[in-house]
Amino acid sequence: MEGTPKQPSNLSLLLQSLLQEARQLPEQGKVADYIPALAAVAPEQTAIAVATLDGELHTAGDASQCFSIQSVSKIYGLVLAMNRLGDDVWQRVHMEPSGQPFNSIVQLEWEHGIPRNPFINAGAIVVADMLVSHYSASKAALLNFIRKLAGTEQIWADNIVYQSEKEHGNRNAALAYLMKSFGNIEAEVPQVLDHYFYQCSVEMSCEQLARSLVFLANRGQDPWTEQMICSRRDAHRVNAILSTSGMYDQSGEFAFTVGLPAKSGVGGGIAAIVPNYGVIAAWSPRLNSFGNSCRAMFMVTRLAEQLGLSVY
Amino acid sequence: MEGTPKQPSNLSLLLQSLLQEARQLPEQGKVADYIPALAAVAPEQTAIAVATLDGELHTAGDASQCFSIQSVSKIYGLVLAMNRLGDDVWQRVHMEPSGQPFNSIVQLEWEHGIPRNPFINAGAIVVADMLVSHYSASKAALLNFIRKLAGTEQIWADNIVYQSEKEHGNRNAALAYLMKSFGNIEAEVPQVLDHYFYQCSVEMSCEQLARSLVFLANRGQDPWTEQMICSRRDAHRVNAILSTSGMYDQSGEFAFTVGLPAKSGVGGGIAAIVPNYGVIAAWSPRLNSFGNSCRAMFMVTRLAEQLGLSVY
Amino acid sequence: MEGTPKQPSNLSLLLQSLLQEARQLPEQGKVADYIPALAAVAPEQTAIAVATLDGELHTAGDASQCFSIQSVSKIYGLVLAMNRLGDDVWQRVHMEPSGQPFNSIVQLEWEHGIPRNPFINAGAIVVADMLVSHYSASKAALLNFIRKLAGTEQIWADNIVYQSEKEHGNRNAALAYLMKSFGNIEAEVPQVLDHYFYQCSVEMSCEQLARSLVFLANRGQDPWTEQMICSRRDAHRVNAILSTSGMYDQSGEFAFTVGLPAKSGVGGGIAAIVPNYGVIAAWSPRLNSFGNSCRAMFMVTRLAEQLGLSVY
Amino acid sequence: MEGTPKQPSNLSLLLQSLLQEARQLPEQGKVADYIPALAAVAPEQTAIAVATLDGELHTAGDASQCFSIQSVSKIYGLVLAMNRLGDDVWQRVHMEPSGQPFNSIVQLEWEHGIPRNPFINAGAIVVADMLVSHYSASKAALLNFIRKLAGTEQIWADNIVYQSEKEHGNRNAALAYLMKSFGNIEAEVPQVLDHYFYQCSVEMSCEQLARSLVFLANRGQDPWTEQMICSRRDAHRVNAILSTSGMYDQSGEFAFTVGLPAKSGVGGGIAAIVPNYGVIAAWSPRLNSFGNSCRAMFMVTRLAEQLGLSVY
Repeated sequence: MEGTPKQPSNLSLLLQSLLQEARQLPEQGKVADYIPALAAVAPEQTAIAVATLDGELHTAGDASQCFSIQSVSKIYGLVLAMNRLGDDVWQRVHMEPSGQPFNSIVQLEWEHGIPRNPFINAGAIVVADMLVSHYSASKAALLNFIRKLAGTEQIWADNIVYQSEKEHGNRNAALAYLMKSFGNIEAEVPQVLDHYFYQCSVEMSCEQLARSLVFLANRGQDPWTEQMICSRRDAHRVNAILSTSGMYDQSGEFAFTVGLPAKSGVGGGIAAIVPNYGVIAAWSPRLNSFGNSCRAMFMVTRLAEQLGLSVY
Repeated sequence: MEGTPKQPSNLSLLLQSLLQEARQLPEQGKVADYIPALAAVAPEQTAIAVATLDGELHTAGDASQCFSIQSVSKIYGLVLAMNRLGDDVWQRVHMEPSGQPFNSIVQLEWEHGIPRNPFINAGAIVVADMLVSHYSASKAALLNFIRKLAGTEQIWADNIVYQSEKEHGNRNAALAYLMKSFGNIEAEVPQVLDHYFYQCSVEMSCEQLARSLVFLANRGQDPWTEQMICSRRDAHRVNAILSTSGMYDQSGEFAFTVGLPAKSGVGGGIAAIVPNYGVIAAWSPRLNSFGNSCRAMFMVTRLAEQLGLSVY
Repeated sequence: MEGTPKQPSNLSLLLQSLLQEARQLPEQGKVADYIPALAAVAPEQTAIAVATLDGELHTAGDASQCFSIQSVSKIYGLVLAMNRLGDDVWQRVHMEPSGQPFNSIVQLEWEHGIPRNPFINAGAIVVADMLVSHYSASKAALLNFIRKLAGTEQIWADNIVYQSEKEHGNRNAALAYLMKSFGNIEAEVPQVLDHYFYQCSVEMSCEQLARSLVFLANRGQDPWTEQMICSRRDAHRVNAILSTSGMYDQSGEFAFTVGLPAKSGVGGGIAAIVPNYGVIAAWSPRLNSFGNSCRAMFMVTRLAEQLGLSVY
Repeated sequence: MEGTPKQPSNLSLLLQSLLQEARQLPEQGKVADYIPALAAVAPEQTAIAVATLDGELHTAGDASQCFSIQSVSKIYGLVLAMNRLGDDVWQRVHMEPSGQPFNSIVQLEWEHGIPRNPFINAGAIVVADMLVSHYSASKAALLNFIRKLAGTEQIWADNIVYQSEKEHGNRNAALAYLMKSFGNIEAEVPQVLDHYFYQCSVEMSCEQLARSLVFLANRGQDPWTEQMICSRRDAHRVNAILSTSGMYDQSGEFAFTVGLPAKSGVGGGIAAIVPNYGVIAAWSPRLNSFGNSCRAMFMVTRLAEQLGLSVY
C-alpha cells in the first residue's frame, strides 16, 4: 500500500458515487444460471461496503441485502481448518496458483490428487473433508464461526440453493472421488460434498461480509472483539494465497488492476482485503466470462485506485 | 507493508548477520548444471544488497561479484517491451499465473500459443520477439537499458554462457517454433532465440541488480536520476505479475513466507521489490528443487520478516 | 489370416505342450491386488481353450476352473447394448483407440465426456448406463445373455469380488460423475456403477469363455444353436474395436505379435477372436506391467504363430 | 479376410463403377490448403488402382496422374529404417495407437520424447533422424527405395511442395526440437526436417502406389521381382501398426468400416493393404475433417465391402 490511504472526509459519499457509476454502466455479463435458485436473483441489485480496522462501516446500495456467498465461503472454511489442524493442512493441499479453470480435473490427476490451492474447488473439497473429519457437526461449526466473525446470529444457509447445488454437483463429485482414489479424502464423499454445498449456500450481506473478514486485514485479530481469530502468520498466509488465486482465472489481471488479496463467488460477491486498513465487500449478480461480478469488479477497482490501496 | 519498515540504525549490520547465518546453514541444493559454464561457478559465494528509495545501498558478502542473472533478465526485457509497444504487449502474452513448470509446452498448446505470463520461458521468448522486431539492435538496446538502470557501463553478457545456452536450448526452440506455428512469433526463430539467450547470459552483481530495479519500488521513477523509467501503472503491473509468477513453482509459497514481488534465476540470484522502500538482491549458486537459490531464499525471507516487509 | 489355418491332427496336444512351456517359464508378473478378493487367487493356475466354428472344443490345464473375467465382460455388455440401442450407442461412445491409460480421466475431460471407445473403463461405464436405462433388470439381463452364449446356467457373479470392487471403485466413480456432468450418463451414478461392478465380477472358465464368443468369429452367428447373436456388421465392428483397443496399452504390440482382436482382464483372462476359425481363451493370474496375463499372453502368442492365425 | 476374396471376372469394371459413384457424390470436404502448392491441385481428380499378388494391376480414373503422397511416405521411411536398424527402431518410437491428433505435442511431452508410433508426425520425424544418421544421402536412398518398389525411375519429389513444407513446418520443428531436448534426435534438427519434408513431397500415381506396397500384402516379398523387401515379421508389424494408427483420428472407424491396414495423406491419397491379396490405392484431393480423402474413403470402403476384404 502506498503509504497511509487517504481517509476521505466522507468515504460513504465516495461509495455512493461509485455505486451510481456502476449502475449506469452499459448492461453486461449474466447471472450464474447453473442452478435455478441462483438464476432467479434480481440482477440489478448492487452494493458496496467497507469495514475499517477502527470499527467503522461505510456502505452504499443494497448492502444489507443477503446473497449467496458461494466461493467466498472458502475463506471461512480454510481459516477454520487451519485453526483446527495447523500446518497439517498443507500436506493435503498446496498453496500455488493453479493456472487452470477452478474446477479442473486434469491438474488434479497430474498432481496425484493434491489440489494446487484451497480456493479452487478441489482444494475447498479437501478442506471440507478436514472439517467433516474433525468436527462432529461441521456445518454448524462453520455457520457459528461465520456468525461470530460477522457479529450476528442472523446468518443462514439457503436451503433451496443447498439442494440445488447437490443436484448439479456432478463435477464436484468427480473431483471428490478422484481425490479419494488417491487417498486424499478421509470421510465418505457424500458427507464431504454435503458440507461443501452447505457452505456454498450460506447467505450474507456486504455489510456482514466486510465486517467478518476484517481480522485478515488486522494480523488475525478481530478489531471489534479484540479476539485473535487466527495467528498473524495464518492471516498473512490466507492473504498471500488470495493474492495469487482468489479471483479464478482473472487473478493475475486483478493483481495488476486492483493489487489486493480478494475472493469472488458466482453469487456476484467479492471480498477484498486491504492489509492494515480494512475490507471492501461488493456485490452485484451479473458475472463476466471469468465468473466475477462485473459491477463489483468495477467498484472495487475504482475504489482501490482512488484510495491508492494497491499493495504493489 | 505493515506501516513504515523499521529503519535499523544499521541495516548493514543486519545484512552481515544474515549472511553469516546463511553461510553456516547445512549445505543443501546444487548448482545449475544444464550448461557447463554455470556448473563451474564457485558454489560458496553468497551476497546480499539492499538499495533504498533514498539512494542508500547496504551490502554484505560478495555483493560486487558478478554472476549470470538468467531469468531475472526477464524483468528488463519486459519493461523495455512495455515502453516500446505499450498495451499491445498483452495481446500476445497474458498476465495470469501458470501453475505449470516454467518451460511447459503443454499449456502453450492448450492456450494456442499465447503464454500465461512474461516470466515463464515461453512468455519471455515472445517478449524477445517483440524486441527483435522493434529494435534494429535489440541486444545492444537491452544491454544499454540495463546499464542505464544500474548507473554503470561495466555490465556485459558472458560469451561462454551465451554460446552454451544456445547449444542446450532445444526446449526453448520447441517453445518458439510452437508459438510461431500459432502465429505468435514475428521474427525468425533463430534470431529470437539469439536475443533470448543473450539476455539470459548478462552478468550483474547484487549491488547492480538492487540499484537497477529500484524504479519498480518507486512508481516507475529512478530515485538517483529522477528519470521516469516506466509509467506508475506499468511499475504496478510488473510487481503484480512478479507476485504471482516470479519464483517458478514456488511463487505461492514465496508469497506467503516473504510476501514481496520477486524474480529468481538459475544463476542463484533473487531480486525482491519492496514497494515504497527499495529492492533486495541476494545471490548464492546452490538451488533448491524449484530452481531458487537456497541461501538467497533464506536471507530474503529472514530480512522480510525482521523488517516486516510483507505486503500482505 | 494367412489362408486356412492348419488344423493340427491334434490341436489338443499342441495346447498341452504350450501349457507345459508356459508353466516352466521363469516366474514373472504379479496377481492383481487392488482388491483383496482378486489377490487371493492361486497364482499358478493356467489354462487354455480353443472353440472352433465347427463346434469343437480343445482344452489344456485348468480350463474348467472359473475365474473373474473382469474387463472381458465389456464385450458382453457392448453386444447387449448394440442389440438394444442400435447405432445410437455410437453417439455416446467413440470407437477410436485411446492412447491413454484405461482409466484416464484427462482424455475424458478433453473430449467433453465422450469416451474414446467402449473397452476403456469410461466407455464401459457409459455402456452400463445404457443397459441400466433400457433394461428393468440389467444385471439379470447381462447374466442371462452370457449364460445363453456359453450354453450353461452355471455362471454367476462372485459376491465378494462384487462388494470389493464397489469399495475400491473411487476412480470409476470419478469417471462416472464427470460424464454425468457432461450429460453422458442418464441413470443415477450409483446404480450404473452397481451394474458395472457386477459385470466385472462375473466368473467363467476358459471353456465357457471360448465357446461364448465364437459368434464373433462367425459373423454374428452362434454355430451351436445357429442363432444370430448380433448382426454380421456388429460382429465386424466389435472385432475392429478389439483390434485397436482390447489389450490396454499393449494393444499395438499385441496387434503385431498376435494379430488378432482380443480382450484381456485383470483376473488374468484373455479372449482372442480368430475370424472364420474360432476363439482362443487363456488364463493365468499373474499380470505384466500393462495388466495382461504373462502366461496367457505367451500361450496365445505362440498358438497364433504356430497356426498362422494373424489377420495381417 | 473372409475366405478367398471373390475375384470378379472383371475387377476393372467394378473399379470403374465405384469411380463413377464417387464422382457423383455431393461435393464435400476441402483440399488441404496449409501450403499453397497443395491448395492448387484440381479438386475433381479421382483415381483407384488395385495391384494383386499375381501381378495384375486394375485401375480406373486418373490412376496414372501423380500427386503428393505426403504421409503415405511414412511407410517407405519406416521400412527403410527397419531394414537398416532392425529392432533398435523400437527403442525410439513405440507402436501403440496415439489417441491424439497426428501432430500432438502434448503426448510427446508426457512420454518424454518417445512418439507413440511411426505414423504420427513425431514418430516419422524420429524415423527421418534414423535415416539421416545412417545414410550418407538419405533423401536419395529413400527415393531409390520407392523407385525400386514401384518398378520405375519416374518418381520425384516436387520441389515447390518441398520448399513450401519447409516454410510452413513450424509445428514439426517444435516436435523435433522437443524430442531433441529429450535426447531422441541424433542429427541436427534442420537436416532431419529437410529429409522429412522431402519425403512428404514425393509424388506418385495410384498405379505406382499400389504396386510399390504389394510386398506388405505378400509377407515381405515383391511378387514381380520375387525379392524380399523386408522380413515376413516386419511386414506383419507394419500392417499391425497401420491397422491401429494409419488413418489419423479416424483409424478406429476405418478398422470397422473397411477392416484393412491403411495409410492416408493430406494430398488425398489412401493405400490399403489386403493381406494375401494385394493393395488398393485411391486418390482424390478433397479431405474430410480428419484429413482423409472423402472420395478415396468412399471407394476403398465400398470395394472392401463388395469383395469381402475386411480382415475381421
